[in-house]
Amino acid sequence: MYNVLEKEVYQCLAAAGVPTPEYSCFPLEGALTATSWPVALKIMSPRIVHKSDLGGVALHLNNQEELEEARKNILHRLCLKGFTPDSKDEWIVTRQYTGIELFFGVVQDPVFGKVILFGAGGTTVELFRDICYIDSEAGEQEIRNGILQTRVGQYFARGFRGIKYDPGPIVALVQKLQRIEVRELDCNPVILTEEGPVVVDARMVTGTCITQSKPLKFIPEIFRPQRTAIIGVSSHPEKVGYALAKNNSGDPDCYYVNPHLDKLFDKQVFPRVEDLPQIDTAVLCIPPAALKDSIVRLAVKNVKNVVIITAGFREAGRDEHFLEELAAKYGIHIIGPNCLGIYANGKNLTFGPGTPKAGDVNFFSQSGAIVAELMDKAVYKNIGFANIISAGNMADVDFADLIHSYEGAHPVNLYIEGVSNGKNLLRAIRGSKVPVRIFKAGRTEAARKAAFSHTGNLAGNYEMFTGLLKSVGATMMRDINGLLYPYHFEKVLVITNAGGAGTVISDMISDKLYPLSQAQIDSLSKVLPKHWSKNNPIDIIGDATYERYLKALTIADSFGADAILVVVTPQFMTDTNKIGEIFYTHPFRTKVFPVLLGGEKMETACRRLRSEGVTYFEELSEAVSYL
Amino acid sequence: MYNVLEKEVYQCLAAAGVPTPEYSCFPLEGALTATSWPVALKIMSPRIVHKSDLGGVALHLNNQEELEEARKNILHRLCLKGFTPDSKDEWIVTRQYTGIELFFGVVQDPVFGKVILFGAGGTTVELFRDICYIDSEAGEQEIRNGILQTRVGQYFARGFRGIKYDPGPIVALVQKLQRIEVRELDCNPVILTEEGPVVVDARMVTGTCITQSKPLKFIPEIFRPQRTAIIGVSSHPEKVGYALAKNNSGDPDCYYVNPHLDKLFDKQVFPRVEDLPQIDTAVLCIPPAALKDSIVRLAVKNVKNVVIITAGFREAGRDEHFLEELAAKYGIHIIGPNCLGIYANGKNLTFGPGTPKAGDVNFFSQSGAIVAELMDKAVYKNIGFANIISAGNMADVDFADLIHSYEGAHPVNLYIEGVSNGKNLLRAIRGSKVPVRIFKAGRTEAARKAAFSHTGNLAGNYEMFTGLLKSVGATMMRDINGLLYPYHFEKVLVITNAGGAGTVISDMISDKLYPLSQAQIDSLSKVLPKHWSKNNPIDIIGDATYERYLKALTIADSFGADAILVVVTPQFMTDTNKIGEIFYTHPFRTKVFPVLLGGEKMETACRRLRSEGVTYFEELSEAVSYL
Repeated sequence: MYNVLEKEVYQCLAAAGVPTPEYSCFPLEGALTATSWPVALKIMSPRIVHKSDLGGVALHLNNQEELEEARKNILHRLCLKGFTPDSKDEWIVTRQYTGIELFFGVVQDPVFGKVILFGAGGTTVELFRDICYIDSEAGEQEIRNGILQTRVGQYFARGFRGIKYDPGPIVALVQKLQRIEVRELDCNPVILTEEGPVVVDARMVTGTCITQSKPLKFIPEIFRPQRTAIIGVSSHPEKVGYALAKNNSGDPDCYYVNPHLDKLFDKQVFPRVEDLPQIDTAVLCIPPAALKDSIVRLAVKNVKNVVIITAGFREAGRDEHFLEELAAKYGIHIIGPNCLGIYANGKNLTFGPGTPKAGDVNFFSQSGAIVAELMDKAVYKNIGFANIISAGNMADVDFADLIHSYEGAHPVNLYIEGVSNGKNLLRAIRGSKVPVRIFKAGRTEAARKAAFSHTGNLAGNYEMFTGLLKSVGATMMRDINGLLYPYHFEKVLVITNAGGAGTVISDMISDKLYPLSQAQIDSLSKVLPKHWSKNNPIDIIGDATYERYLKALTIADSFGADAILVVVTPQFMTDTNKIGEIFYTHPFRTKVFPVLLGGEKMETACRRLRSEGVTYFEELSEAVSYL
Repeated sequence: MYNVLEKEVYQCLAAAGVPTPEYSCFPLEGALTATSWPVALKIMSPRIVHKSDLGGVALHLNNQEELEEARKNILHRLCLKGFTPDSKDEWIVTRQYTGIELFFGVVQDPVFGKVILFGAGGTTVELFRDICYIDSEAGEQEIRNGILQTRVGQYFARGFRGIKYDPGPIVALVQKLQRIEVRELDCNPVILTEEGPVVVDARMVTGTCITQSKPLKFIPEIFRPQRTAIIGVSSHPEKVGYALAKNNSGDPDCYYVNPHLDKLFDKQVFPRVEDLPQIDTAVLCIPPAALKDSIVRLAVKNVKNVVIITAGFREAGRDEHFLEELAAKYGIHIIGPNCLGIYANGKNLTFGPGTPKAGDVNFFSQSGAIVAELMDKAVYKNIGFANIISAGNMADVDFADLIHSYEGAHPVNLYIEGVSNGKNLLRAIRGSKVPVRIFKAGRTEAARKAAFSHTGNLAGNYEMFTGLLKSVGATMMRDINGLLYPYHFEKVLVITNAGGAGTVISDMISDKLYPLSQAQIDSLSKVLPKHWSKNNPIDIIGDATYERYLKALTIADSFGADAILVVVTPQFMTDTNKIGEIFYTHPFRTKVFPVLLGGEKMETACRRLRSEGVTYFEELSEAVSYL
């Protein structure tokens, strides 16, 4: 890697339209001069990357005398550090600028390709790491969103000490860095002067950018399986092919294939793919060695969607590149391998536990076990799915393709450990018409190690991942349960019989608490005891009965909130079973969710709510994860 | 409030031994000089608090010419801001120091009294708020802990750009500020020079410090009720006096008092306090107006512990100061008012739902509803308590007294909304022999409002609260469920049949994952399939059966971890009921906790574990909150 000299960096930056300082270079033994003061003096050597660390920099030099003195001091410090300048080394004198110190950078990330960094500069970079990440393809608004993710972004948002700074020149500089052809660049500091930002020190690594040119696939038919086949059904209950067959035994448009079986679950079993009627989607649970041949025969039969349950590929160190090639060659879409299957169009083409009801949740996951866990929870909690895609190794179809192909109206929820083509994921989310919500595992080194050991996925730089994903508008979830919910609530009412619980939940959703108007407070005061909270959370006091809950809820239902959480704690007067009835005997316009805190006293009510098909929560943290 | 002039601040600081800059003062029209360069020039006026905001400061002046120029510029800027200097105003010329910019401050907090602030200085204070809080009574180690809570503390911990700074002079300066008699002080910046820190700008508000002189009570007998009485029992099931009587109907050493009843739950009811046998603890659920008289009569009978259930005092805007006075006058200890009661020495003197088993958890709470919720949960989850104190309004005995009086060996867990005597809380935790773990509600404005409306408590400055509490060694809990657990685990093993769940939990407890040795890995490899993770979390693969779980757990039990979480997800081969048997049929040396993720497929196993008295979890987040 060639260490680019400071003057060469300035030439390169200037060519890209990036503002650089006034500077002059001088031979090591030559006279030093400056045309305006103050200036900075720095040693410039192909052998030195970090000048400051060697004492090779002197700042705020106000006159010729100080400049000469600085030269002596620098040479002395270099000598102490064991560095002897030679004829290849030069002095560079740059004009000294004053203003806010910023940081700009360019990196090449294995997941996201070229990414721009912006933040507070100077020593602050190391101390506070107040940095945002901006995609090289980000538009102006996305750049502004990124800048506002930093603390130093306050200068441009609400101003600082009474002065509001124009973000325009910052955005423009980011845009120049988006276009500049470098491998790595560290501009620190960039001084924000009254005339705009000026790069006053920079390091650069030349080279070409990583490009990621795979196009996004638009394949909405993946969500519309109609006539399906399971290749590799089994009559052995401990086999995956049995579970898949069983989950689809009631579907007349689902066919079974196995050369060694005649009948299964009262259905004919076809010996070969060729014998099948026309189908659109095939699920394969056959040995790895048989896959290629089967896929080709399915493709020849014009099957579009191929879901590969079979494991033992990348996660086991074996090549799976042939799958992507087959998909491209035949124009088919491959989900998997190493996955739990898909649930779409009401068809449960998974070997997951039970079949959840149809509903609005879209859930795409890299981990099959997480799919199994959340499906089982959904069955228990009466949560319905529109689409579940257990994406597995994503040899062909990946998250980006799935988001790009989704045409429905509900949020798309993702469980991600690591992705290989980050640019495409950003593009897909940028273009998505629905909210994209992501739980990203792999924040810590321990988790990245765990993720790698079970899928072979590189989880990547978590901070960069979340920064970039947020700037394209994705929501990062803190709780995996949040992936089980299809709505997005902004204005939430809380009714509670416990002030403590009201306080705790206020901390959790302070930005979503719907503020009550005086008229709304007055209408509640008519039915509530004198000491109710007159505030949201609506604390209806510890001795609240069924009647009081019902009255408060009926009035609150007309307030126009997005959702009402009804928190019930097991206090002395609390008839939890009776209060539970409210949620299945009364219709409400607002989405209403009971939150039953405790344990023993709530068991019967919870069981009844489940049997009545009501979604309820047992922890405040669980409830808020669904908002 | 008198605006103390910069020179007066320096005089005051110098008198306290705090290093101040070389400075000289000059009349407004007089000549300006300096003995060494560079210097800073500032206007000094009784009418100006924030000089910088008016442009009244010029820095880095290198010679007489620049000094004169700066005077003109300052006068020009002041004029533009509409400020006309007069004969009371002066110039102050201070030596310009270079080094790291720090911030030191002194505040008087309504909760904690005098508190010292330390952090990164300059504009950084506003931008990054990298501040720690140090108690005025903190010793050297606690001061060091505080400093290391800040980012700028890195300079003193692991060093910065290769230079490690000595924290000694910082600690010494904090100690001087602990002793200085001021109301408020803002030293910003303090420059850390090679000779130590120098305050180069400061604002001060004179006045005396808030003192909190209430002594800590040592009253271990509060945890040892033996012969008890319930004053105000009732035969009406909807009354609190009924619930309390019922919860204690089996205790021959618990007596009932009510002038209108003869018998209740087959026990004699005494008409008056005077008729009771000798008791040590009385629980009062009688009307507010009758309290004072009853307490006096109990005190005369030499009753030591008085628990007041009765509500309607401070939370209803009514004075409760007489309770503290009665306690002091008669040497008794009053818990409450407005509380759920206490559970101690195996006696359930609460009207909470059900009676949890005896165990090791100590739980002191400001909210009765939170006590009710966690008691009910504990009953359901087989968690046992040593002590529960529903502290209510804490008119007499407060959290500090309780911590100070606890003589057991297990952690003390607190739910706090707001406290009035923060100094005592810090003193008690500083002196505690057991870990103190705190869930603090009121991080957000919304929650502070909710807390105030239901208890009249001021939740205070959350950041200061958590900062100070951490520096005295308390653990701040993020999940309220963590209050239900009596242990502290440092080395945790995770066994899982799902790599995804292993990845997610690794993010949650990355610092507690017990690292496996090669010998341990080898011993597990003998019984696990080839592709197991060879790492903690021990991923025993999705097709793990009862036998594989048992083998892995039996081996891991010998590794010497503090706890083993056994994560089970409902995968195709997972016989959850059979796996559940492991936890009540096999003894383990290590504490072992099943974590059953999902819902429908886990219900039967969970029910069985409950009936077998096994503590288990249904969410990863719940499990880790107990570690």
